[in-house]
Amino acid sequence: MLNYEKIFAERTRLMKASEIRQLLKWVSKGNVISFGGGMPDPKLFPKEEIAKITYQIISEQGEKALQYGPTEGIEIFRKEIFNFMHKENIKVKDADHIIVTSGSQQGLDILGRILIDPGDVIIIELPTYLAAINAFKIYEPKLIGIPVDEEGIKTDILEKKVAELIRNGEKIKFIYTIPTCQNPTGLSMSLDRRKHLLEIASKYDLLVVEDDPYSYFLYEPVKVTPLVTLDNEDRVLYVSTFSKILSPGLRLGWIAGEKQIIEKISIAKQSMDLCTSTLTQYIAAEALRQGVIERHIPKVREVYRKKRDTMLKALEEYMPEGCRWARPIGGMFILAWTPEKIDTKKMLLKCIKKYKVAYVPGQSFYVDGSGTNTMRLNFTYPTVEQIDKGIQYLSEAIKEELQSS
Amino acid sequence: MLNYEKIFAERTRLMKASEIRQLLKWVSKGNVISFGGGMPDPKLFPKEEIAKITYQIISEQGEKALQYGPTEGIEIFRKEIFNFMHKENIKVKDADHIIVTSGSQQGLDILGRILIDPGDVIIIELPTYLAAINAFKIYEPKLIGIPVDEEGIKTDILEKKVAELIRNGEKIKFIYTIPTCQNPTGLSMSLDRRKHLLEIASKYDLLVVEDDPYSYFLYEPVKVTPLVTLDNEDRVLYVSTFSKILSPGLRLGWIAGEKQIIEKISIAKQSMDLCTSTLTQYIAAEALRQGVIERHIPKVREVYRKKRDTMLKALEEYMPEGCRWARPIGGMFILAWTPEKIDTKKMLLKCIKKYKVAYVPGQSFYVDGSGTNTMRLNFTYPTVEQIDKGIQYLSEAIKEELQSS
Repeated sequence: MLNYEKIFAERTRLMKASEIRQLLKWVSKGNVISFGGGMPDPKLFPKEEIAKITYQIISEQGEKALQYGPTEGIEIFRKEIFNFMHKENIKVKDADHIIVTSGSQQGLDILGRILIDPGDVIIIELPTYLAAINAFKIYEPKLIGIPVDEEGIKTDILEKKVAELIRNGEKIKFIYTIPTCQNPTGLSMSLDRRKHLLEIASKYDLLVVEDDPYSYFLYEPVKVTPLVTLDNEDRVLYVSTFSKILSPGLRLGWIAGEKQIIEKISIAKQSMDLCTSTLTQYIAAEALRQGVIERHIPKVREVYRKKRDTMLKALEEYMPEGCRWARPIGGMFILAWTPEKIDTKKMLLKCIKKYKVAYVPGQSFYVDGSGTNTMRLNFTYPTVEQIDKGIQYLSEAIKEELQSS
Repeated sequence: MLNYEKIFAERTRLMKASEIRQLLKWVSKGNVISFGGGMPDPKLFPKEEIAKITYQIISEQGEKALQYGPTEGIEIFRKEIFNFMHKENIKVKDADHIIVTSGSQQGLDILGRILIDPGDVIIIELPTYLAAINAFKIYEPKLIGIPVDEEGIKTDILEKKVAELIRNGEKIKFIYTIPTCQNPTGLSMSLDRRKHLLEIASKYDLLVVEDDPYSYFLYEPVKVTPLVTLDNEDRVLYVSTFSKILSPGLRLGWIAGEKQIIEKISIAKQSMDLCTSTLTQYIAAEALRQGVIERHIPKVREVYRKKRDTMLKALEEYMPEGCRWARPIGGMFILAWTPEKIDTKKMLLKCIKKYKVAYVPGQSFYVDGSGTNTMRLNFTYPTVEQIDKGIQYLSEAIKEELQSS
């Protein structure tokens, strides 16, 4: 047999199987309450509506919906996304400034592909979305993490770091941020910080990539303005997804921004998958057109708010002293900090086996290797009952860990 | 505004918008008969069956079919692909040796990603599938073309070239071949050549990538054995797609091969799109299970055979002296050679504007820049009437070109 190890490309060393997904595989087999993953509540999918839409589309427009489509996405879908963004107060010039991607994950991979040369600097949040780190890593950038607090990325530190990097002759390709209901912290950037971030980007002529899967799910009566809407210099690229507002199984995301970069993304995408599923694009376009998504979001928001509140209450009730956690205004996650001596990665196996509860160790989200005492807790997938029980189990595990260490 | 040109990665210079797709955009606007593209006949899509399957799946299994799925593909789909391959006499160990991709295009991109370091040698056919060339190019290999004749890739030349490359210290990563109904020539490799190719691969310990979208569409009573079935050394990786046997709009392809490489592909795919559309996988799995694809293929075969025969007859009838073309036993394309002095790339614009007919200039398929007098003609998308008329128009265009040059 061929010695495959010998023929793999150097870059495969940079590829790491996502711990989240490894974990999910494992958890699905046992009777374990999972706060791992980032899945929506499947009971909320508007099944009947999607089923009807799909039947109609295939019957009536099957010759188009089952055929190849344009790389940048089908026209009616891009127009519907444009209308949707417009209603949501997310600035976008026109439908031509939007490209459909196979989930926002493909968007991140393409951005790496068209923007990152080995050694380029990408500025990310500390912590940030693990799968974004993995998507960018392949292209061999230097990933520089800037800490996040209750008001989002610390822009004072950011500014100093940017100045320093530029002084040192580094090439900064973009700042990657999840300003609203950040993954994994759940925290959101304040308006002042948003403005400051854009000032810094302007001063140093930098591109900003705004990843925004969660701003449609705010559980408090707050108003959040996307960076792209605040931006007057066409330097923010907006990345989002239908995974949370409709269904992840459709694999639909989009990027909105300057025409020049949208065109480059389209050329890159051609050789990656020719186009995103035409059928699922037709489905989502029709779901937008018929208002399915508009009606769906408030329902989901209600359920998720209740789940978030259940988790916050349970954390308050069960967690031992020395633990703290963020209170997210929306999204899908709560980041929790255990006392420093706990290594949440080491504790995970016992949690799953003995306490029948799972989470994602936070360290993977910290590009500097810190965060060893953190854990990301998802509250959208488990039921309200599971959330209460799971946090109780988790608290017991932490207590045992504290006593034994 | 940000100077985007300044921030694009070096590799974007290697990205070329596919001429085929540019052409398609253009042609769709005018009243032009198109032999460009490689689209199936949309009138043949089993619309009603897919619509019913989809309605049932979303209604009954929507919680799974609309959720995220495993990166390697959903289990029942991989099992159905395994059964399908088995019935079609395509060797595969078990469902674990199969990974689902977002079209075979993603498969080609992933192979580039996990196998090609800059400067590595990839051996391809001369000519070969344009989108494969574009997929590999990004990873900066040396693409070495080996000529194809009526019996497929010229293995005598291949053997000499491989020996020479290895003598010169080159690292050959794989041989990429479309042995059956090759794109663009339509030609198929003889059994002797297939065996010889595998002998060479064995002798020099090389990986072979067999791209096989068309072997399900043979229009003659011939038996073709895939390389992977002839291979006794687990060195053939089999790549295929549902675009031709069911629908391109589902964006489903697959790779079958050694476990080791399938696992590496899965890790690479994670950061590219997390997973392929769960919904479209459920649809195709059910279409396989219910025998929709099995019943669909013979119907399509009948129509395509008639279209191929129409094109061959029209070529015979209308083409001026000095033109020749291959007679494909299946697939979707006929490659035609015009007299050497004609540059089919230059002639295209006139063909579209004056003669209302389009094709793909063959040069793009020749990595060495030859083939300037060739054109790829697709016979699956246009109607029988369009084929006859279109070839007549094309012949007139060639005649005019010959007179004026």
